[in-house]
Amino acid sequence: MSAPGYALGIDLGGTRLKVVAVDRGGAVLHRIVRPTVDHGPAALPPWADAARTVSQQMAEALGCAPTVIGVAAPGLASKSRRCIDYMPGRLAGLEGFDWTSFFNSPRLVPVLNDAHAHLLGEAWVGAARGHRDVILLTLGTGVGGAILSDGHLLRGHIGRGGHLGHISLDPDGPPDNTRMPGSLEDAIGECTLAKRTGGRFASTVELVNAAASGDAAAALAWARSIRALGCGIAGLVNVVDPELVLLGGGNAQLGDQLLVPLQKVLDEMEWRPGGAAVALKTTALGEWAGGIGAAQSAWKQLAEEMPA
Amino acid sequence: MSAPGYALGIDLGGTRLKVVAVDRGGAVLHRIVRPTVDHGPAALPPWADAARTVSQQMAEALGCAPTVIGVAAPGLASKSRRCIDYMPGRLAGLEGFDWTSFFNSPRLVPVLNDAHAHLLGEAWVGAARGHRDVILLTLGTGVGGAILSDGHLLRGHIGRGGHLGHISLDPDGPPDNTRMPGSLEDAIGECTLAKRTGGRFASTVELVNAAASGDAAAALAWARSIRALGCGIAGLVNVVDPELVLLGGGNAQLGDQLLVPLQKVLDEMEWRPGGAAVALKTTALGEWAGGIGAAQSAWKQLAEEMPA
Repeated sequence: MSAPGYALGIDLGGTRLKVVAVDRGGAVLHRIVRPTVDHGPAALPPWADAARTVSQQMAEALGCAPTVIGVAAPGLASKSRRCIDYMPGRLAGLEGFDWTSFFNSPRLVPVLNDAHAHLLGEAWVGAARGHRDVILLTLGTGVGGAILSDGHLLRGHIGRGGHLGHISLDPDGPPDNTRMPGSLEDAIGECTLAKRTGGRFASTVELVNAAASGDAAAALAWARSIRALGCGIAGLVNVVDPELVLLGGGNAQLGDQLLVPLQKVLDEMEWRPGGAAVALKTTALGEWAGGIGAAQSAWKQLAEEMPA
Repeated sequence: MSAPGYALGIDLGGTRLKVVAVDRGGAVLHRIVRPTVDHGPAALPPWADAARTVSQQMAEALGCAPTVIGVAAPGLASKSRRCIDYMPGRLAGLEGFDWTSFFNSPRLVPVLNDAHAHLLGEAWVGAARGHRDVILLTLGTGVGGAILSDGHLLRGHIGRGGHLGHISLDPDGPPDNTRMPGSLEDAIGECTLAKRTGGRFASTVELVNAAASGDAAAALAWARSIRALGCGIAGLVNVVDPELVLLGGGNAQLGDQLLVPLQKVLDEMEWRPGGAAVALKTTALGEWAGGIGAAQSAWKQLAEEMPA
């Protein structure tokens, strides 16, 4: 029997760190959130400074250093899992930043794409527990995602696997931020809300509430977004063949206001050979999923290095 | 050193069987094509009768019975790989037909979806050799496909993985044969050619030749189909992140008439983090790929049962 210990799971976002201490069974022992404010010129990027501070706080709170550490961050993670290879425009300094060296860790600190970590967390102790074929779509400013195929994360050749928002639903539409014409992201992401609604709504929640209150223009805009999402998901089901589709991210908190109309669209267009329908659910771990997935990844890394 | 022997790879199509004898290294020793004509009431379905006859012909030609047998067929293969689970409307009797029992084989006769087998063949000794992340699209009457992810076939939960033609490019379009609105299959598959061209062309080859000869309407129709295909592929690249996109099926024989305009569309809309472009190629094994992939599957099955 090895010592209990904990994995430090760091989920690095654009404005804050969400950090969890997780035991081998997936129980969260402690959580810390810390903004990654830039205090001006410093030896370290603000997110790295925050990560160091939080790891010390966690060690104080739990009375010991972490057994292992894992990091989830935006961008494409390197094949070696030592760093994020590609993340232009945000989080300056993150590309190529070696987390194993940063923490002076004797073993690899695995680095994962944040949506990938999110799905691993949900598959470990969340809404996808016990499932081997799952897709996750995160609905927020943009539309992200991840794929679990036969129990394995679909990483792909350069770590791009699961960028589910960047599929086209209109070859004649305007290009999105990856150059994709008429993308799913632009059809439902918060990033195009003003454009889709003539600037009337500041959030999708406002749009959906207006639609529910009988605002016909809002109802039409929401119905169009839901139809696009349904088409995108039904297509992904034919490509990846999951048993479960998970919806996460801020707008998954809409719950039935999202799930009920979306299920109706899927009932119309999902291909169901032999009658098999894919399950549709929202995520269970909320904003902690990424850190939990990063923690699991670190535990798995340890198990591979030191087989029982 | 084990005896050389051969794997019998059977590729079952709607109107004929294409059968190969393949050695352990992937070399094709012999090929036989046989129509699966229905001679009326018989003890066996015509395709099973043809399979038995061809296996005897192959044994006579090569002087011995096969070491192993593999089968590729349309439809969704069962998880156990003993049969096709789902294939409505065509090849009556195929669903649930147990090929291991049929051949009285002492070991499993693995059964695969035909597009899956096609990709396995190309990855073994064809255009995808040496690649671990590949997508195949087959362009013919419909649009089919398969995905190789980290060296493994993406089967999915019910064997539906890789049905790449059934993604939507227009949520308001008419439903295809899986109920998908405005699908990629309907945008470029031969099945909608008459509808897309006012009945002027009997084949995509005719359409493309007319476009090349200055027929403006033909050029527009072909350009629209190519744009849809490019959008579909660019989206799949973001979902699956392959290093190589293979085009197979009858219309891949268009070669540069297909590849040159398609590459131009991809140059416009493919997301290329860090400059990495995905390779685009046509398949190398032609109509024999499915049988070769089925043969490889049978050899692999043997190797797993009898480790060296």
